[in-house]
Amino acid sequence: MPEQTTKAFDSSLLDLRRTIAEMGGIAETQSAAAITALLKSDTPLARRVIAADEAIDRLQRDIETMAIATIARGQPTARDLREIVGTLRISIDLERIGDLAKNVAKRVVALGGKSLPPSLARGIDHMTEMVLGQLKNSLDSYVRRDLAAALEVWKGDEDVDAITNSLVRELLTLMVQDPQNIRFGIHLLFCAKNIERVGDHATNIAEVVHLIMEGHALLDVRPKVDCTSIPWVLVPV
Amino acid sequence: MPEQTTKAFDSSLLDLRRTIAEMGGIAETQSAAAITALLKSDTPLARRVIAADEAIDRLQRDIETMAIATIARGQPTARDLREIVGTLRISIDLERIGDLAKNVAKRVVALGGKSLPPSLARGIDHMTEMVLGQLKNSLDSYVRRDLAAALEVWKGDEDVDAITNSLVRELLTLMVQDPQNIRFGIHLLFCAKNIERVGDHATNIAEVVHLIMEGHALLDVRPKVDCTSIPWVLVPV
Repeated sequence: MPEQTTKAFDSSLLDLRRTIAEMGGIAETQSAAAITALLKSDTPLARRVIAADEAIDRLQRDIETMAIATIARGQPTARDLREIVGTLRISIDLERIGDLAKNVAKRVVALGGKSLPPSLARGIDHMTEMVLGQLKNSLDSYVRRDLAAALEVWKGDEDVDAITNSLVRELLTLMVQDPQNIRFGIHLLFCAKNIERVGDHATNIAEVVHLIMEGHALLDVRPKVDCTSIPWVLVPV
Repeated sequence: MPEQTTKAFDSSLLDLRRTIAEMGGIAETQSAAAITALLKSDTPLARRVIAADEAIDRLQRDIETMAIATIARGQPTARDLREIVGTLRISIDLERIGDLAKNVAKRVVALGGKSLPPSLARGIDHMTEMVLGQLKNSLDSYVRRDLAAALEVWKGDEDVDAITNSLVRELLTLMVQDPQNIRFGIHLLFCAKNIERVGDHATNIAEVVHLIMEGHALLDVRPKVDCTSIPWVLVPV
């Protein structure tokens, strides 16, 4: 590439990285705010989360446009190309995280201010801390190109599964004890599942960091437990 | 591009399209089989669906590798480039459809052969017909580069939302009437939600076809009702 083209290309790559960092920051803020709204039964906050989702969707479209323009102008190969394809993939994961936060916020609105039993709130709080930690670490591993940190995120997914599992059991018990809790319990089940899926997307981001740096996918299959499919047999229904 | 390079590039593009078509066919088969397993309480079929998911995951990785290699070798611009980026996005949607089918199949196994009440089975059957129709039409619109067909899929999503909504109401009533139905009902709620999400991915595929052909995203916001978040207030709990 001529020097000027190289400069323009490097600057486009930096723009892409900056936009992913911005989008990642919003996805973190939206997830944290949606769960705070759930834990504090804060309907106005939930409505703000719903309204703010459009910003993430717009950034996803911007990244796609920028990525295509950067490839077309710079004709990159090898790692630069993987990097651009990687930002595309990460932007799709971040956009889905935004959707999940919005869905939790919609359920907070549907619950109309009903507050959570303390033990459930503690469980969700604990799960959230783990998942948002995973999301932060996956985004940091992308920014710092830190393969070891990406692998840590990738392995940490099992812990989130275990805590979702115990939350699901508690919610089921609550619903079986009193049918008045069913509507409430199901909204919370879907919220727990959504929070768990934020963690899955953090794992995807870690996989993309591996792909960018190593040039091939992480092939091992994670020992994944689908916590809402299997352990319900343990629940005394 | 020199003629030989052009030929190699065209052949790579065709390979990518063929692989997407193959992957789309498997995603359709897996979704249909998972729902058949659910409707007929066919645990062995469900186990085959779970085992077959690995093939879709592998095809997704193949498409990513092929797409990166095709861009690096052919240095495409404009529509060819959008097409390659589009196949990447479609492959991600198809991989997720595979995951959703697998999740339905896991729930069939967890239900251990318990059969569905006829009216629920009819509702799920109806919903499935619509969603698999949407998936087929979205894949056809990709293969034929048919913008009008893609827009039809994109608009048809509301019908799926309406039927999911009525299924959710029926399931809730069943659970409230008898707590013995709760575990069963929640598995079916998640199945219904998964089938609905297959429809969402079909809509995404239609959006990608629009992006490939028109060069920009479909910007209008679909009038989307989140059927598991809002209408439960209608249910007499």
